[in-house]
Amino acid sequence: MAHDIKILTEAELREAVKLDLAAIDVVERAFAALATGKVVMPPILSMEIEEANGEVDVKTAYIPGFDGFAIKVSPGFFDNPKLGLPSLNGLMVLFSAKTGLVEALFLDNGYLTDVRTAAAGAVAARHMAPEVVKTAGAIGTGVQARLQIEAAHLVRPFSRVLVWGRDMAKAEACAADISRKLGIEARAEADPARLVAESQLVVTTTPSREPVFKADWLHPGLHVTAMGSDQGEKNEIEPRALVEASAYICDRVSQCEALGELRTAIAAGLWSGDMPAELGAVVTGAVPARRSAQDITICDLTGTGAQDTAIATHALGCALAAGAGTTIRA
Amino acid sequence: MAHDIKILTEAELREAVKLDLAAIDVVERAFAALATGKVVMPPILSMEIEEANGEVDVKTAYIPGFDGFAIKVSPGFFDNPKLGLPSLNGLMVLFSAKTGLVEALFLDNGYLTDVRTAAAGAVAARHMAPEVVKTAGAIGTGVQARLQIEAAHLVRPFSRVLVWGRDMAKAEACAADISRKLGIEARAEADPARLVAESQLVVTTTPSREPVFKADWLHPGLHVTAMGSDQGEKNEIEPRALVEASAYICDRVSQCEALGELRTAIAAGLWSGDMPAELGAVVTGAVPARRSAQDITICDLTGTGAQDTAIATHALGCALAAGAGTTIRA
Repeated sequence: MAHDIKILTEAELREAVKLDLAAIDVVERAFAALATGKVVMPPILSMEIEEANGEVDVKTAYIPGFDGFAIKVSPGFFDNPKLGLPSLNGLMVLFSAKTGLVEALFLDNGYLTDVRTAAAGAVAARHMAPEVVKTAGAIGTGVQARLQIEAAHLVRPFSRVLVWGRDMAKAEACAADISRKLGIEARAEADPARLVAESQLVVTTTPSREPVFKADWLHPGLHVTAMGSDQGEKNEIEPRALVEASAYICDRVSQCEALGELRTAIAAGLWSGDMPAELGAVVTGAVPARRSAQDITICDLTGTGAQDTAIATHALGCALAAGAGTTIRA
Repeated sequence: MAHDIKILTEAELREAVKLDLAAIDVVERAFAALATGKVVMPPILSMEIEEANGEVDVKTAYIPGFDGFAIKVSPGFFDNPKLGLPSLNGLMVLFSAKTGLVEALFLDNGYLTDVRTAAAGAVAARHMAPEVVKTAGAIGTGVQARLQIEAAHLVRPFSRVLVWGRDMAKAEACAADISRKLGIEARAEADPARLVAESQLVVTTTPSREPVFKADWLHPGLHVTAMGSDQGEKNEIEPRALVEASAYICDRVSQCEALGELRTAIAAGLWSGDMPAELGAVVTGAVPARRSAQDITICDLTGTGAQDTAIATHALGCALAAGAGTTIRA
């Protein structure tokens, strides 16, 4: 009855699991499965701990065709920086989808979430961006600005990156990191309108509550991935842009209505059309997002439990292949 | 930033964490905290995996005054016995309630749940059973029949146990185990009415969907703990008994309405009185459950996330004291 359980720390996971095409492919499979309608993805379990200015979210999803399912626990304790600790922590547990036995514990402190979030951006870029992208723009200067650009570069090997942020010093640091990592030109751009005008692919990666991307900036041949909004108060894209784009695609409509850019557009009375299509349907080809090089496309990413199950399954494969981590017989 | 995480297997937990007065006391503290109204206990996250005849539940609770909070994942995969595996598995993760950092992983396969469930029965017995219990009766012959009797014996040291089950051979095996464990007389009793008549404390521990305890069996000086029903289809106690008892107490009213004996009583139109009191209020003394030796009391236990947080906190203390488990620096 005893079986082996793999345990990997964040350091071991950073070594074993890379943001590469294999990670993008497994996340793409998860989106394709979402489109089949057979994925089971319950609402997020959420608990607030007011006394500690903390909150905990638990996500899970079962995807037919994947051997395991992940349960992800994401605590956010926003007074931690005062203690010299990061606000965000957490882990993923991978269970067998056949027996429910624990297969692996990933003490990743959010690293696998970073990877699967960036991988979703690459899936969107692969299926929605114009074939030729010369310049990519990042709005935002954090971890996801770096990783979204890195992931998109794997599917659209652009030669130039522009970075805008409210803090130019941070934009410059972000651009320098990207340039070093990808070996291409990357620089901070002080004017976000010019950043968008010069880019064929833009990722918005901010926690903004007011649009950082104006509808007037849309131009033919542009793809935008908006991944910053994942809560009911956030909004990165001016709502009119969703209506004016040739195609607006959700990672999950039910989530985008509540947490994504779609929420603001609905609240503004601007979105009254059909239900948007989902990224999974674009992946499978059921819905064509981009019909021409001149189309304008927007993809709204809020983050799904299906991606967690995909990346956790992938991480176990990587760990076993690399002989990484600790094995406990339990 | 790296910190130590304790990992304990089921075997290590069985060695380090016993069903004793310390476990009962910590669970009692959790119930007392529940009564203060300051506990945060979100609804259970539940996911069904039809293809594998499986389901997964995730429970959590934050209790002010406890240093940590637990997240418990309980998979039930009901085709596992065909593979030679137990149906129920799972683990608990203990997080710091101040920082959200992972403190411990308990790969307990449900063992800690067994302990905290039995401990809740002892809390009910301590505060609701008559002072003097000579004979205790168990209806049901499984793990909880054994553990509930063992736990109750710690707070009411009875000298005789009767066990009834649909299968007399199992009742005999259960009685033999209890007798060996507690060093007292224990025997199977073929007639459940007689079992109740001769007992001052009865625990019902079955997954029955039809009452196994009849209202006519109530007698002065009896306490009943019903812990078998934890799902919307289950029912152990004939609903009329809840109304006829001197006191009917819930572990958590919102759960007993949906999952416990109260559900059937409400459905039968029998329960139209006030909202029942909760065990926590009995523990703190806010509500007197038993006013005399002749009173008849019933406690309905459905199992709470607060108990999980309590037992996980206790388990970490036991593990550290015993130097048990594996430590991973992550």
